[in-house]
Amino acid sequence: MIKRLAIIGVGLIGGSLSLALKKAGVVSEVTGYSRTPSVRKEALQLGVIDHAAASIADAVKDADMIFVAVPMAAMEIVLAELAEHVKADAIITDGGSAKGQVVDVAKKVLGDKFRQFVPGHPIAGTEKSGPSAAFAELYQDHRVVLTPVAETNVDALAKVRSMWQNTGAEVFDMNVEHHDDVLAATSHLPHILAFNLVGMLAERDDCDEVLRYAAGGFKDFSRIASSDAVMWRDICLTNKDAILELLKEYQNGLNQLQQAIENQDGDTLKSVFERAKKARDTRFSE
Amino acid sequence: MIKRLAIIGVGLIGGSLSLALKKAGVVSEVTGYSRTPSVRKEALQLGVIDHAAASIADAVKDADMIFVAVPMAAMEIVLAELAEHVKADAIITDGGSAKGQVVDVAKKVLGDKFRQFVPGHPIAGTEKSGPSAAFAELYQDHRVVLTPVAETNVDALAKVRSMWQNTGAEVFDMNVEHHDDVLAATSHLPHILAFNLVGMLAERDDCDEVLRYAAGGFKDFSRIASSDAVMWRDICLTNKDAILELLKEYQNGLNQLQQAIENQDGDTLKSVFERAKKARDTRFSE
Repeated sequence: MIKRLAIIGVGLIGGSLSLALKKAGVVSEVTGYSRTPSVRKEALQLGVIDHAAASIADAVKDADMIFVAVPMAAMEIVLAELAEHVKADAIITDGGSAKGQVVDVAKKVLGDKFRQFVPGHPIAGTEKSGPSAAFAELYQDHRVVLTPVAETNVDALAKVRSMWQNTGAEVFDMNVEHHDDVLAATSHLPHILAFNLVGMLAERDDCDEVLRYAAGGFKDFSRIASSDAVMWRDICLTNKDAILELLKEYQNGLNQLQQAIENQDGDTLKSVFERAKKARDTRFSE
Repeated sequence: MIKRLAIIGVGLIGGSLSLALKKAGVVSEVTGYSRTPSVRKEALQLGVIDHAAASIADAVKDADMIFVAVPMAAMEIVLAELAEHVKADAIITDGGSAKGQVVDVAKKVLGDKFRQFVPGHPIAGTEKSGPSAAFAELYQDHRVVLTPVAETNVDALAKVRSMWQNTGAEVFDMNVEHHDDVLAATSHLPHILAFNLVGMLAERDDCDEVLRYAAGGFKDFSRIASSDAVMWRDICLTNKDAILELLKEYQNGLNQLQQAIENQDGDTLKSVFERAKKARDTRFSE
């Protein structure tokens, strides 16, 4: 049971955690803060949070557990601000997509409270954002990765794990670098690929017509290009190394396919497509 | 009303046309042929077709309308074979994804029956294949593009248009080159991109683990990598020029994003992502 939960950033991710814990009956009071007053108000009116705080200081001063669900670019300033106001034994966790960057920033600004900080990443989301997009079942049967470091307090880690389990999520521990590589492969790179395709089509004079002839496959493929541009800018900037490495590998693969098409080399095309189809069909459950 | 319809290739595309026309009550008899005897038998047992023919000659000899739904690589041999056996006034149409290639081949092998040939492309499908994947509603509210050429008989065109309208599809005419460009952009290129990503992940030692951490966005994005490898090999080979041009443009875009990430140039990333999001949100309805 969490007595007082503070959520910094009451959008899809933060708001859904609040709703899930309320639904599970494992939180007494949720205070939410957003930099934008209208967003705080909306979250309160929708019942996503119980109280809307006017400042980070207000939001966290009595909190036992603090969840930071802000864009990666805001992480440092938010952690620095809350570090000055949290209770000594408060637990701090986050939902940032690139853990290397978050851990670096947290170590720098949290001081001796860094031990109470549990880096985390709920692997769930939709292409929508804001408090109105939040729902209690977002994390149900999804995975949450925690990336504790040597300094991380084991009790804090256990409490954060238990919190996420109460949302219906499966919780795993992973080391920071491995997390960032895995997420670059399955989330960051696909988003870049989809943004690049839809952005390219948007430049065409016949864009409207082209999109009119798109079938279901394109709809699914391009859905993630509807994700928040600022959030994804920040992810690209903060998980730079892992993304660049995979992007290079991806481009090598694309060059190979391009050459195969140029040379009418059907065998190469078939073998690459078969390998992909086999992996998608056998190693990946819907 | 079509008296005798022959379907060459009784998989998802051919089988679904048969089921849709039967459901609409606008076809009296459907004869199907597949190169593979077990597939013909399956289509018959599932009620996808009324008769299974043992040869193309048998399938088409009494047919008023013939729909060729075979892989692009088989198009020439199938059209050449049926040209020798069709009735003089039979109408021939197809479902091939690259119309330039189909028109070239049809002109070459159909002789004076080329006038009775209406090149077509139903823009619908799933990642599944075979007669068991066929269903009557596949074309409902989807688009079918017909790409008539100068020689195409107008009555034949009208009858093929009417047939597709009876499946619940919207039917449009387009010129051959424009069709191939539009489809390369919205279908062929996305498939190549998805195959390339999933194929690359399949090579990783930690592939199983990686896919375990993939969220919903990846599932949607990679679904098309589960499509038939041979069919997509053939599409790449037969729509070569349009695909290569777009692939080059895509790679230029990817290089731009790569450089922006390297240079920590958030403005470029944000503007590309925003352009894509805006196009996906406003110009493309789910």
